[in-house]
Amino acid sequence: MKSKFSGFGRCLVLLAMMAGAIISARLPAADTPAEKTVQQWDIFEAQISGPADGNPFTEVQVSCNFSDGSRIFTVNGFYDGGGIYRIRFMPDHPGGWSYTTASNIPALAGKTGSFQATPATGKNHGPVHVSNTYHFAYGDGTAYNQIGTTSYIWVHAPDDWEDQTLKTLAESPFNKIRMLVFPHNDNFRKTIAPTLFPFEGTPPRNWDLTRPNPAFFQHLEKRIGQLRDLNIEADLILFHPYGNNYGFNNMGAAADDLYLRYITARLGAYRNVWWSLANEWDFIRAKTEADFVHYGEVVSSNDPYGHMLSIHNGALIFNNTLPWITHSSIQNGDAVVESSRAELYRDVFRKPVVYDEVKYEGTGAARWAQLTPEEMVHRFWEGTIGGTYVGHSEYIVKDGDYWLAYGGKMYGQSAPRLAFLKKVLDDGPVRGTDQIDKWQDSPISGVPGQYYLVYFGLNKPTSWAFQLYKNGLRDGLHFKVEILDTWNMTITPVDGDFVTAKKDNYYFVAEQGRAITLPGKPYIALRIRRVDDAPAVPLTAPNGE
Amino acid sequence: MKSKFSGFGRCLVLLAMMAGAIISARLPAADTPAEKTVQQWDIFEAQISGPADGNPFTEVQVSCNFSDGSRIFTVNGFYDGGGIYRIRFMPDHPGGWSYTTASNIPALAGKTGSFQATPATGKNHGPVHVSNTYHFAYGDGTAYNQIGTTSYIWVHAPDDWEDQTLKTLAESPFNKIRMLVFPHNDNFRKTIAPTLFPFEGTPPRNWDLTRPNPAFFQHLEKRIGQLRDLNIEADLILFHPYGNNYGFNNMGAAADDLYLRYITARLGAYRNVWWSLANEWDFIRAKTEADFVHYGEVVSSNDPYGHMLSIHNGALIFNNTLPWITHSSIQNGDAVVESSRAELYRDVFRKPVVYDEVKYEGTGAARWAQLTPEEMVHRFWEGTIGGTYVGHSEYIVKDGDYWLAYGGKMYGQSAPRLAFLKKVLDDGPVRGTDQIDKWQDSPISGVPGQYYLVYFGLNKPTSWAFQLYKNGLRDGLHFKVEILDTWNMTITPVDGDFVTAKKDNYYFVAEQGRAITLPGKPYIALRIRRVDDAPAVPLTAPNGE
Repeated sequence: MKSKFSGFGRCLVLLAMMAGAIISARLPAADTPAEKTVQQWDIFEAQISGPADGNPFTEVQVSCNFSDGSRIFTVNGFYDGGGIYRIRFMPDHPGGWSYTTASNIPALAGKTGSFQATPATGKNHGPVHVSNTYHFAYGDGTAYNQIGTTSYIWVHAPDDWEDQTLKTLAESPFNKIRMLVFPHNDNFRKTIAPTLFPFEGTPPRNWDLTRPNPAFFQHLEKRIGQLRDLNIEADLILFHPYGNNYGFNNMGAAADDLYLRYITARLGAYRNVWWSLANEWDFIRAKTEADFVHYGEVVSSNDPYGHMLSIHNGALIFNNTLPWITHSSIQNGDAVVESSRAELYRDVFRKPVVYDEVKYEGTGAARWAQLTPEEMVHRFWEGTIGGTYVGHSEYIVKDGDYWLAYGGKMYGQSAPRLAFLKKVLDDGPVRGTDQIDKWQDSPISGVPGQYYLVYFGLNKPTSWAFQLYKNGLRDGLHFKVEILDTWNMTITPVDGDFVTAKKDNYYFVAEQGRAITLPGKPYIALRIRRVDDAPAVPLTAPNGE
Repeated sequence: MKSKFSGFGRCLVLLAMMAGAIISARLPAADTPAEKTVQQWDIFEAQISGPADGNPFTEVQVSCNFSDGSRIFTVNGFYDGGGIYRIRFMPDHPGGWSYTTASNIPALAGKTGSFQATPATGKNHGPVHVSNTYHFAYGDGTAYNQIGTTSYIWVHAPDDWEDQTLKTLAESPFNKIRMLVFPHNDNFRKTIAPTLFPFEGTPPRNWDLTRPNPAFFQHLEKRIGQLRDLNIEADLILFHPYGNNYGFNNMGAAADDLYLRYITARLGAYRNVWWSLANEWDFIRAKTEADFVHYGEVVSSNDPYGHMLSIHNGALIFNNTLPWITHSSIQNGDAVVESSRAELYRDVFRKPVVYDEVKYEGTGAARWAQLTPEEMVHRFWEGTIGGTYVGHSEYIVKDGDYWLAYGGKMYGQSAPRLAFLKKVLDDGPVRGTDQIDKWQDSPISGVPGQYYLVYFGLNKPTSWAFQLYKNGLRDGLHFKVEILDTWNMTITPVDGDFVTAKKDNYYFVAEQGRAITLPGKPYIALRIRRVDDAPAVPLTAPNGE
C-alpha cells in the first residue's frame, strides 16, 4: 500500500503532518460522522452536505486525509446527488483513525472526525495483493487462489436476474468475476435494454459527459458489495470495445478522466475491487496505447490502497512491465494448453500471470466459445502447474443469453471440477506453487522439498516412477503420495512413504526405485507432500539451469 | 541509425554545423588521411600521432565528427599504443564525407579531412538491423535470416586453431557467432592458457585496469574482420560469469566503463559487430540488474550506428522492453520445443526474438549438452515457425575441447540440415515469416495469402488436408505445394495447383477437399507458395482472434 499526497490536498496534508492534532481540534466536525466504529478493511463513510447547483461533478473538489497517527492516506470524495458529498475510506489496520477534509468549497473543507477500526472478523480477509512475486494473498495473509469467471454485463440485467447471478456465484468456486462497468449494446434476451447509464442523459448517445449518474453507480456498488460479502473479487473493466452504440468508448479525454476519478473515489474503499483498465484494449479503435498508460496513471494515482490493476489484451499484449500494473491479465487462447507455455509470461513480467481469457466452455460457433468442459478444467490445471492462474466462463445459450454475457445460471460441467481444484490449492502451500524445474518441460509445480503437484494432462500413464528435481532434497526424506482424478474429483492415497534417494546430478527417486500405479486415464494428478519433520534442505540450483 | 552529439565534442559539432566548410578549410589535415576512398559500410580509419606518456587511455579524449553534409556522426577515437591514436568510421551511404576531430589535447584536435565512400559491392550488404518488427535485414535490404552458433572462447586459442575455426565456419551455414571478449579460465586442451589479455599486466589478476591492452584488441579485431569477410556477424559478449580467475567480471565501475568506451570506439565501425552485454547476466554475482542497464546506456550512447544490442539471461530474463535493447537474446532450454511456445516472447517484447541458447547438440553429461542432432534441427524449425530465430552449438569433446568452447571443428550432424533450413529461408519472403494464426496452435508460419511453411515436427502424418487460415485468402487462388524433408534435406514438388475454396468462417481448403500424401516420417514440412498473379487480398482478421 502506498500513501498518496497529490492534488490540491497536498498542502493541507503537509500542514496537518506538521501541526498534528492541534489543527484537528480547531476544525469543525463533518455533518455526519457516520458510525464511530468500522471493521478493518470495511468502509468508513463520511457524508457532507454541499452545493447542489452548478455542476458539482466538475466544479467541486473534495478530498480527505485519513491518518492513524503515522501515515496519511488521501482519498477523493464524490458527489452522490441531492447536495450530498461522500468520502469513503478503507482502514488497513485496527485502531484509531482521524480525518480532515479539504475542498475548494469552504462548506466542505476542514471537516474533521475520527473513528475506531476494529479487527476483521468472519469472511473479511482484506484486499488481495501480490505475494511471493507470482501469487496473491489477502490482507490477513490468507492465500488467495484465484479461480476466476467472467460475466461481462451481469449488472446490466433485470434485478431478479442479477439476484440469480449472485445465487449462482454463491454456490460456485469462483472468487473473482470480470465485469464491464459500461453497458453493452446486446440487450438482455435480445429485448430488454439497460435502464441505468453511467452519465446523465438518454440513450443511445444523448449524454452529459460532465455528469456521472449517481443512480448507476449506486446500483453498481450495491452489486459489488454483494460480491464482497460472497468473498468474490470484482475485476471492474473500465473500458471495453463492445457495443459502442452508447459511445462510451469514445467520450474524449476530459470525460475519460472525470469518469476514472469518479469511479476510483466512489469504489476505491471496497476491498474486493480490482481495476481492469480494459477488455481487449487494442480492439478499442478510438484509444491509443498512450491513452491507456495515462488511464493507468490516473487510476493508480487516485487509489491510495494499491488495488489490483491490470489491462487485458486482444491481439496485442500490453507492456506489463510498467510499474503501476500489479499483475498481467492475459488473453491467449493457447497459452495454458500446456504448463511450460503457461510459465513463459511469468518470467518476462515478474508479476502474477492471470490468464483471464483462454476461450470458454461452450457450444458456440466461434472458436473461442467451444471448449469442452474437460478442456476448460484441463487448462486450469496446466495454468496452475505453470505457476499461473486461469479464468473461466461459459457460452451455453439458453433463452437467448449465456453466462459470459448476462450471468444468471451456469449449465456447464467445469465449475464443480474447478471447486475441486480450488480445494486442492487452498489445502496447499500458502505461498503458492511454482514450476520446480522450469524450462525443462517438467509437469511439476510445488515448493521444493516440501510439496509437489504432478499433472499428466491428456496423457494416460499407467505408472509413474517417483522422480523429483534435486532442489530442496537429500537422501532419506519421507513423502506421502495421493492420486487425484481431476475430472472425477477423487483423491486416492498411495500406501506407505516414498523415501528419497539420489539418482544422479539432477534427480532424486524413491528408494527401491518405487513407482506409482496409475489408472491409465487422462486428467490425473499426483499430490506429493513431505511428511517427515527433518529440517528443510537449502536450495542450491537456480531454477532454469 | 541515430547521430550522436555527446561529451566534449558537442560544442564543436554545433560550431561546425553553423560554419560549415569554412572551418574545415582553416584546420590542419590529420597526419594520415588513410585511403581517400572506402566502400560504404567498410571502415574509414584516420591515424593521428599524439602523446605516449602519462596514461593515454584515461588522460586523452579524442572524438571526431563525420558529416555527409546533412547529418553528423560523432565517434570516439582510441589509443592503439606507441603514440598512435585511431579514429574509425563506417559510412552508411556512398558519397562525400568530411570530418573534424576534437580533443582535450591540442595536437589531436581540429584535424580535418574528407573521403569518398563508394557503393557496396560483392558480399558487403551492410550492418544488420531490425526489420518488420520481428525480423532482420542487412543495410541494403537483403533479408538476414539468422542461423547462429556459439563458440565462446575461440579467439583465445592458439592461432592455428583459430584459423581452423574460421575454415570450419566458412563451410558452415552459420551467419552469426556468439563469442566472449574476456577469456575463460578453461585452458585450451586443458593445458594452453590464453596469452593475450584485455588489460596490461600479468595473469591471473595483476592488471592495470586503467590500461587496455592494444595487442589483445588488435587480435580480436583481426578475427572480427575475418568473420566479416565470411559474412558472419560477431555477437560480442562483453561480460560473462565464467572463469573469474582473471577477475574481469568484478573490475569496478570505472574499469567497466573504460572498457566499454574503448571497445565501442575500437570496434563500432565493424559492420558485423553485435553487442551482447552479457552471457547469463544474472549469474554474474558481482553485478546488479541496474549495472547492466547502465552498461546498455553506455554502449548505446557510444555507438552512433545502432548496432544490434542485447543481453542474454541465465534463469532471470532481462527486461527486454527497454528501448536500447534491439532484440531479445533468450536462453530457454524449452521454448523452441514447439512453435506456439516460441512465439510467446515475441508478443511481449515486440522485437525480434533470438533463442541464442536452447541447449546444444552433443553427448555431455549435463542436460544442456545432450541434444540429438535431430532435436537441434527440430528446434530451429519450431523457432522458425514461431517467427523467431535460433542458435546452435555443439558439445562433442575431442582432444579435451569442443566447438562450444574453443571452436575448431564440428563433429555434429545438425549443421548441414541448418544449411538446408537457411536455403529455405533465403528463398522465402524477404520480410520474414510470422505465425499465420497465432494463439490457435497452428504449426504454420508465413505471409498471409502469399507464402506458408507448415511444419509437422515429431508427428508422422501420412496425409494433410490443405487448409489455411482465412487472412489474405479468397476463393480461386492458386498455390503450389512442396514436401520438405528437413532431416534428409529433400524437396519434393506436389503435382498441380491447389485452388482455394472457403470452408467456414475461419478457413480455406483446396477445391475438391484435396489433400497431400505425406511420408509418415517425422520432421516433414510443407512449402506452399502462391503462383497466380491476382492482386493481394486485404487482411481482415486480427492475428490471435
